[in-house]
Parts: sequence; C-alpha cells; structure tokens
Amino acid sequence: MKYLTAASRLLRHSSRNLSDHRSNLQFFCSIRPSSSGLSYTSLRSYEHLIQDDCFHRKITLKNICFRGSGVGILHCLPKFQSDGIRTHHRNLASTALIPERNKSFATINSDDISYFKKVLGGRGVVQDEEKLDDANTDWMRKYKGSSKLMLQPRKTQEVSQILDYCNSRCLAVVPQGGNTGLVGGSIPVYDEVIINIGSMNNVLSFDKVSGILVCEAGCILENLMSFLDNEGYIMPLDLGAKGSCQIGGNVSTNAGGLRLLRYGSLHGSVLGLEVVLANGTVLDMLGTLRKDNTGYDLKHLFIGSEGSLGIVTKVSILTPPMLSSVNLAFLACEDYLSCQKILVEAKTKLGEILSAFEFLDINAMDLVLKHLDGLRDPLPSSKHNFYVLIETTGSMESHDKEKLEAFLVQAIESGLLTDGVVAQDINQASSFWRIREGVPEALLKEGATYKYDLSLPPEKMYNLVEEMRQRLGTAANVVAYGHLGDGNLHLNISTQQYDDNILAKIEPFVYEWTSKQRGSISAEHGIGLMKASKLHYSNSAETVQVMAAIKKVLDPNGILNPYKVLPTPALSQT
Amino acid sequence: MKYLTAASRLLRHSSRNLSDHRSNLQFFCSIRPSSSGLSYTSLRSYEHLIQDDCFHRKITLKNICFRGSGVGILHCLPKFQSDGIRTHHRNLASTALIPERNKSFATINSDDISYFKKVLGGRGVVQDEEKLDDANTDWMRKYKGSSKLMLQPRKTQEVSQILDYCNSRCLAVVPQGGNTGLVGGSIPVYDEVIINIGSMNNVLSFDKVSGILVCEAGCILENLMSFLDNEGYIMPLDLGAKGSCQIGGNVSTNAGGLRLLRYGSLHGSVLGLEVVLANGTVLDMLGTLRKDNTGYDLKHLFIGSEGSLGIVTKVSILTPPMLSSVNLAFLACEDYLSCQKILVEAKTKLGEILSAFEFLDINAMDLVLKHLDGLRDPLPSSKHNFYVLIETTGSMESHDKEKLEAFLVQAIESGLLTDGVVAQDINQASSFWRIREGVPEALLKEGATYKYDLSLPPEKMYNLVEEMRQRLGTAANVVAYGHLGDGNLHLNISTQQYDDNILAKIEPFVYEWTSKQRGSISAEHGIGLMKASKLHYSNSAETVQVMAAIKKVLDPNGILNPYKVLPTPALSQT
Repeated sequence: MKYLTAASRLLRHSSRNLSDHRSNLQFFCSIRPSSSGLSYTSLRSYEHLIQDDCFHRKITLKNICFRGSGVGILHCLPKFQSDGIRTHHRNLASTALIPERNKSFATINSDDISYFKKVLGGRGVVQDEEKLDDANTDWMRKYKGSSKLMLQPRKTQEVSQILDYCNSRCLAVVPQGGNTGLVGGSIPVYDEVIINIGSMNNVLSFDKVSGILVCEAGCILENLMSFLDNEGYIMPLDLGAKGSCQIGGNVSTNAGGLRLLRYGSLHGSVLGLEVVLANGTVLDMLGTLRKDNTGYDLKHLFIGSEGSLGIVTKVSILTPPMLSSVNLAFLACEDYLSCQKILVEAKTKLGEILSAFEFLDINAMDLVLKHLDGLRDPLPSSKHNFYVLIETTGSMESHDKEKLEAFLVQAIESGLLTDGVVAQDINQASSFWRIREGVPEALLKEGATYKYDLSLPPEKMYNLVEEMRQRLGTAANVVAYGHLGDGNLHLNISTQQYDDNILAKIEPFVYEWTSKQRGSISAEHGIGLMKASKLHYSNSAETVQVMAAIKKVLDPNGILNPYKVLPTPALSQT
Repeated sequence: MKYLTAASRLLRHSSRNLSDHRSNLQFFCSIRPSSSGLSYTSLRSYEHLIQDDCFHRKITLKNICFRGSGVGILHCLPKFQSDGIRTHHRNLASTALIPERNKSFATINSDDISYFKKVLGGRGVVQDEEKLDDANTDWMRKYKGSSKLMLQPRKTQEVSQILDYCNSRCLAVVPQGGNTGLVGGSIPVYDEVIINIGSMNNVLSFDKVSGILVCEAGCILENLMSFLDNEGYIMPLDLGAKGSCQIGGNVSTNAGGLRLLRYGSLHGSVLGLEVVLANGTVLDMLGTLRKDNTGYDLKHLFIGSEGSLGIVTKVSILTPPMLSSVNLAFLACEDYLSCQKILVEAKTKLGEILSAFEFLDINAMDLVLKHLDGLRDPLPSSKHNFYVLIETTGSMESHDKEKLEAFLVQAIESGLLTDGVVAQDINQASSFWRIREGVPEALLKEGATYKYDLSLPPEKMYNLVEEMRQRLGTAANVVAYGHLGDGNLHLNISTQQYDDNILAKIEPFVYEWTSKQRGSISAEHGIGLMKASKLHYSNSAETVQVMAAIKKVLDPNGILNPYKVLPTPALSQT
C-alpha cells in the first residue's frame, strides 16, 4: 500500500521535467556549487554569510601561525563569525609534514628580475605585496608560502624562456592556475617563483563536427562552458570552482567533478596537450584526434601530475553535445545493499541517460535538516536510512521521463526503494541538490569535522563508515555521502571540538583500511603538499620509485613544484 | 517529392528494430568481423573461400623471401587461389626498414633453457619447430622472425623471474598475446625469446555494482565478452580479432575498434594494470577505482606502448551495462559536407544512443557491388556520392526507433540526406554491415592495394582523397571509407598491379600531408616494426626524445620488444 502510494506520487510529480535546469548554466551553477563537499563549500558558506555573492572573491584575512620563512598552516578560520557558526581547528586531519627547504635551490636576485622583465615586460613581473599575498595563499587558506615573485607569461615561448632560465639558475617554480586546489598543490611552499598561466586564456579553435576544442591553459572553465553553450556543446567536466579554476589546472590535477559518471575522466576526454618541460623544451602533443596510436601517449603523464613534470600551456579536449532534457529523483532506501542494487538497476534501465547517482546517509540528512534554513525533507512521512539522488540527461524529454518513471515504479514495487519523489520544477530540483550539496555546510555548523575524500569499491564503501562508528562510539558523529556511482565516498567525522585523541583513533586507521581495500586516499583532489607523505597508502613502493625516476628524467633539478606529489625520501633515492 | 518518398520508406522500414542483433553476439561477430578494413579482413576472406570457418585458424604456408637470420618480409600471398581472386604484392606500401640485430643482445644457450625449465617446468618451455613457426610469423604473414624459444608463464611471478633473468643475461624478448597485430609488433625480429601470455587467462573478479572486471592479460577478448554477457555487461571494445586477441594485447596496443565512438578509448576504460618491468619488478597498479588521483597515473604509459616498456599481466577494466535495442540505417549524401553535417545532427539528435557512424564513398560502393556476391544496393533508385551507416544502441526499443525516425525525416527534409533506409530485420542489417565491412575484400578482388590507416580532422579528411585522385589521375582508383565518427579514414589506392612508380607518387606524400594536418599515420593499429621509422610524421623530435628517455629508464638494456615503436636512432641518442 505504501509502495503504491509512493509510486503514484512519483508519477504525479514527474509530470514536468527540468529541461530548463541545465540550459540556464548560471542558475545551475548557483544551485550546485560543489560536488565534493570538502571544506571548499564550507568556506563558501562563510562568504555567503557575509553577503559576498561573488563566487570566488577572496576574503582578505590576517593570517595566523606562519612557520619560519616557509609555508604556514593557518590554524584558525577567519575572524568573522555569525549566525551561530562556530570556528574550529579544521582540516588538520591531514596536515602535511612539510619538508625542509631544498638547499640546492637558488634565491631570486636583481639580475633574475631584470631577465624576467626583458622576457615578459614589466606587466608580467609581479612583485606587488598584496598580489603576492593572494598568490601565496591557497584557496582553503590553510597554507601560505613566501614567494617574492610571480610571473605572468602570455605565450608558450615565454613559459619556455622562463623555465629554461630558472632551470639553469636552479630557481624552483610553482605553476599556478586558478589556485582553487584543495591539497596545497598550487601555492609555493617556500620562496618558489610563481608562474601564473591566467594570461594565456584564448580559445584557439573549435571543430563543430568533431566537438574538439583547443584552447590555452589559462582559460577559465566557466568561460569555456559559455563558449561551448553557443556551439551546442558542453565541457565534459563541471566543478564547483568553475568560475575561477582554469583548464590547465583541471588537466594538471585530473579534476573529477559532476560529469565523471557520464563522460569519464580527463584521461579519456583530453586529446592533446602542449607542455613545457623544466628545461624549457616545448612538447607539442596538441593532437585533435580521437584515435592516434603512434608511440607512447605521453600526455597522460601530465594529466594529474600537478605541474611537477611540466607546465601545461595548451589543451585539446573532446566535448560532448549538449542534451536538452534533465530529470532528478530524490529516493529513499532502507539499507546500503539496496542503494547498490538500485545503482545496478539504474545503469541498465536508465542506461544511456543516467548522469548522476549520489547518496547520503541518515546522519547526513539529519544534519542538513537541522542546520540549513528553508530546507524541508522531500519525503517527510518517515525517516529512512539512506537517500539517493538520480539525475538523467537525454535528448528527448518525453522519453527520459517515461524511462525514469518505469524504472522508479519497478524499483518501488520490488522493494528496493521505500519512497521517492521526482522533482516537478526547477525549484524542487534545486532544493534536492541543496540537500546533497549542503552537507558540508551543515557539518561546519555542527562543530569540528575530520574530512576524508576516498575511493572504495562500492560494495565495501559503507563498511568503513560502520567500522568507524564502532571505533568512535558516542564520541563522534560519523557522516557519509558522496558520488556512489563513481565509488567516491566523502567520509566526515563530526565532533564538538577538535581533539587529538579522536584524531588518533581515526588516523592512520582510515588510511590503512582504505589501503587494505585497495582504495584511494585521494579520489579527486590529488596529493599536493597535503598528502605527499601518504602516497604509499595508495601506491606500492615500486610504483612510487618509478614515479620518482620519471620525475628525475623530466626535471633533473627538481625545480617544478617541489615538495609536492612525491614524498621527498623517494626523490632523494633516485 | 523524392524526399517524401524516401521519408515514407524510412518510416515503413523502421517498423522493426534489431534488438536481437547484438544480443546474439556470435551472430553479430560473424557479420561484423572487422571494422578497420585493413587486409586483416582480406585474409579472412581467403579463409572463407577455402571453407575454413574457424575465425582464427592459421593456414600453414611455405613462407617465401626471408632475409638473413632476421625477420623476413613475405612478398607473396598464400599459394591457394580460387574464385578469381588475384594475388599481388600487398601491404608493401609501408614495409619496414629493418634495423640490424643489436649486437649487445646475447643468444640462447643450454644453461638458459635449463633455467627456464626450472622456473616454468617443461610444459612452459617451447622449442617445437612447428609451434615456433606459428609464433614467429605475424597474422598478416608479412613478417617472420627466427626465435628458437617460446616461454609460456602461468603466473606473474614467473614472468618476473623470466624477465629478471633475461635482463641480467641481456637476452631480448618479445611479449606475445594473440599475435593478431597488423604492424609486426608481436613477432620477433631476430632471435628474441617469445614470452607468450596466453596461459594467464583467468577472470579474477567482477563487481556487478560497478561493472569492473579484473582478469589476467591472456584472457581472449571474446571469452571476456561471453563472461560479461551472463552478467548483463559488455566489453567497452569490440574488434574483428576478438576470437584470438587477448586483453593484454588489446591494452598494450590501445586497440580501438567498433565501440570507440560510444565508449571511448582504453585510456578511459582501463582502471588498473599489473605490469612486469624489464628487470622483473612487478608494478602493482591494479586499481579498481573510477577515481584515483594519487600521484602519476603510470598505467597510461603501458597502454599502447606495445610491450616495449613492460609486460602487462593483469587488467582492471570498466565495462558498460548491456543495452537491448539496436537500430541501423543506411543513408546517402551527395557531398562530403553533408556527411559532416549529418554527423553533427546525429550527435545532437541521437545523442546518447548513437553508437556507430561509418562512411564509404561511391568508389568503395561500386567495388563492393562489383565483387561481393549476393549483395545488392540498398538504395537502388540512383547512385550517390557518399553512403553513411548510423547505428543506435539504447535501453528502450520504442524510444530509439522514434528518435531515429524523427532524426532521419528531418535530415531528408533539410536536404542533407538524399535517400536512406532503416534495416527492418537482422538480415537486412547484416547486409548493410556487409557492404561497409566488405570493402577490403572487394579491393583485394580488384587488384593491388596501397592501404593507409589515418586519423585526420573530419573536415579535412576527404581533401586528401581528392588530392590523391588528382595526383594519380587514371593510374589508380582512390577509395575511401572509415569511421567518420572517430575521424578515422581508411584510404585505399587500388591498381591493377603493384608498381614502384605509383608508390613513389603516394609516399611520402600521404605521410607528409597527414603530418601537415596534424593527423596520425596510425589511427588504431600502432607502430610496431612497420612504422617505427615513420614515427616523426606524427610526433615532434622533442616528443620522440622523451619517449626514448622513458624507455631508457624503464628498460635500460632495451631487451623489451626491440626494434619496435621507437626509431633506432632515437634510442641510441639517449
């Protein structure tokens, strides 16, 4: 009886679809700012509270707790507090063990400045303190370097000249795009020269037949989206940081995001790259071909290596055609096994139109409903242990609705779903996404949070959550949500106050558990400075050794983004 | 009026779809044996003529024209001839310039044999002449090596021990899977030890929730397809050689095939690899995660490097769910621009269900109708300059048919299509595919053929065909077909007899033209021995130099698949 009621509600509510949902990109952006739910979104909530509606405007803070002349870890949040949000020592679950400054690196002198001015002109050589302060500080405001120089090349040849010079002088550099990374990968650790690619921001070509876009690395993701919007195509990736992040940075960090389930990773979408090596050599691998089996496909080395092997200067990428119909369902399951079964069913029954499969557990839902104003439970008749969001994207509205309805009715009748609702307009869809996206903000309002971004085999994913609950007992609230369709769990442990004893119960347990299941300790955000010393949890010693050997070949002096990605001991062994 | 008639025919013919088409994989295999149309299919046609219905049974031949003790180039086809097929000196358009044997390599002695017997037991050490003859000869019967030893390990550890030993003795090796490659990559050039992976053929795990398959490298592609068939999934790649080729070889050659348009390349699908390096080190990168950003993604180095950097021993791969509905349309366009426009329309209007977009020109069509028995023109009312095959695959039959029909009616009404028909049953679909797939066989029956497998930007692809026609005049018939949706052109130049003067007009022009357009001289078949000296046409000198440097790091003695992929001079410069 309950099932039938739910099924009938599904049918009733699905009378309209959300075809306007994605077509209005600006709006969509504002309702789906972040998929990862790391503190990125939490910080944004601060910005909202102080009525800063510009997505990426940085708030100038007095930074605290710098150490020596090297990178500082900011132990406190911004001073502003309002609306009951308490500040905590956040994001210390994975504070980096910062290596000593490499003594073989030179320091900038006036001859260097003169040379760079000769190459770039005055406008491309930034020594202004305020600008440097921004560029030295990461987006999370967790790390801060002490670089005295930022260079802003406009052409590949300039990047080449800069690197050639830096390499010969043994000046360390840090490549920087939108500086929106979450692992301290895009800021200097000490006094590295910042090479900011943002001035290289031209679209070079777009082939409307093949959908292949070629552009410079400094193009902002959202600008590329707008460009493609006019051509009837979309970018194969979409991130919360789209308003600031640059395609070169996306490639260098192998950014994941919201469209990965449907369009796969950048290793599949990126067709070609132009990269400048540490010694200034320009590697022209800027192919625009879907098929090219001529030798080693070197571009993949630069996808996800966080600028430590070369600086990406141009990108060729395959873009999918824009489809007009979007639907969204908010569903309830009583156990995690049902969530998995629903995923399998959705992959078969919705097949080609499935575009997102997200989940959150009851703990996450409770927090959202407790802390986020204006949100109500879409399934208020009773509480459920798990909630699933399923999005479809297709080319014909009536077909997609029919498929989704048939799938949902069957899932309810078979008992996999206990309740559910299909968004009937864009406002309802926004509120559904706001629940999923609002978990980090709710966690922030609740107290301190230990955050982990893990990839695990879906069938084992929730075992970690349950083991963690057993381990921590009543001392903490263990909250789980994430991209179930991609096997990406965002594990959050919420406590009233930051506590070393709690941390000791969580780490290294969480990494060891993940490692034992052959999971990834960084599903989508990379290694950067934050996790370089933890690389072994997801890679064998032999693999790390080969990584270090390749780094040595491509960057023998180690000037490119030092102290990041690879653990310092591995590098010194090569 | 003509348009309306055609449109009405489309609607009439599309009253049934081909949902049985793909569900019967065996049948589908027999009607779509090869997508590339290289002589691979031609050779198969010989097998059919002598009533050899086993897809991959090798015909034992007396080989001709070996040179010295090294690899021989077989200048003649098999002796059997029937049914009017004339033999020609084929496939000499790209004969390899074979380097001298590397003098630093040792030769096998009795101590080596004893060691290998100790590691593998007697069964794994093959010295039998007949078996070696097969393993020394490539599938095209174009190259033949002179190895005296084939090893058949059953475990990764055995591969490791073999390589460790060979590396210390400086014994060169050639990794071999199904030996179905088309560029002489999987056979020894001189006396290299053959390491055949075929005995490592177990499925290790399959996760029905995520669709992730983990298996040993020697699993035959078709066996994996059958395994997945029972699970409701499919392999993301499908090739003519599926009955013999092995997944390790597919990965090592970055095999393309029929499903690339829909499911992308193996760089997107392969999630993890286990690889043994030249010195016996086992690199365990066998992740089963869609998202993993922990360090350099080294597995991509081994995808498509043709066993020259390491031997793939295990593969983890993401498999798509099986969809039940397949439709096929055979269409006519009057000009190449319309073919391109139709592709753009299909990508938008058919969007998520488009699974193949193939084309052939009137010269190809004429040849097929002239030479292939039992085939008739599906659009007999008049001749057309271009023909396009569009296949859709989706999860709901009625939806797919409706989308396809709407798309076709609109395309005819807008004048992009001049005629067309939708297959109404599996026999009609088979005959449509037979036209596309039959071009190589028809070319073989016509005379000598110079064959090129190129990737080019779709808008420029046919310019090469037209320029080649102008260049050759009446001396040759220039025939074009291929995977237009992937930008992959199969350019064939048909003449009565093989002629050095014709070849001199074609090469290096075709490579230079392709290079000038930033195309690929090997879209899907790799470099192997055949094109190692031509690598520069699709790669800059700097890129080749980095490839050689990486080869040097991973295989300092150069024992892995020597003389292949990289030009010998590049290697000697490192």
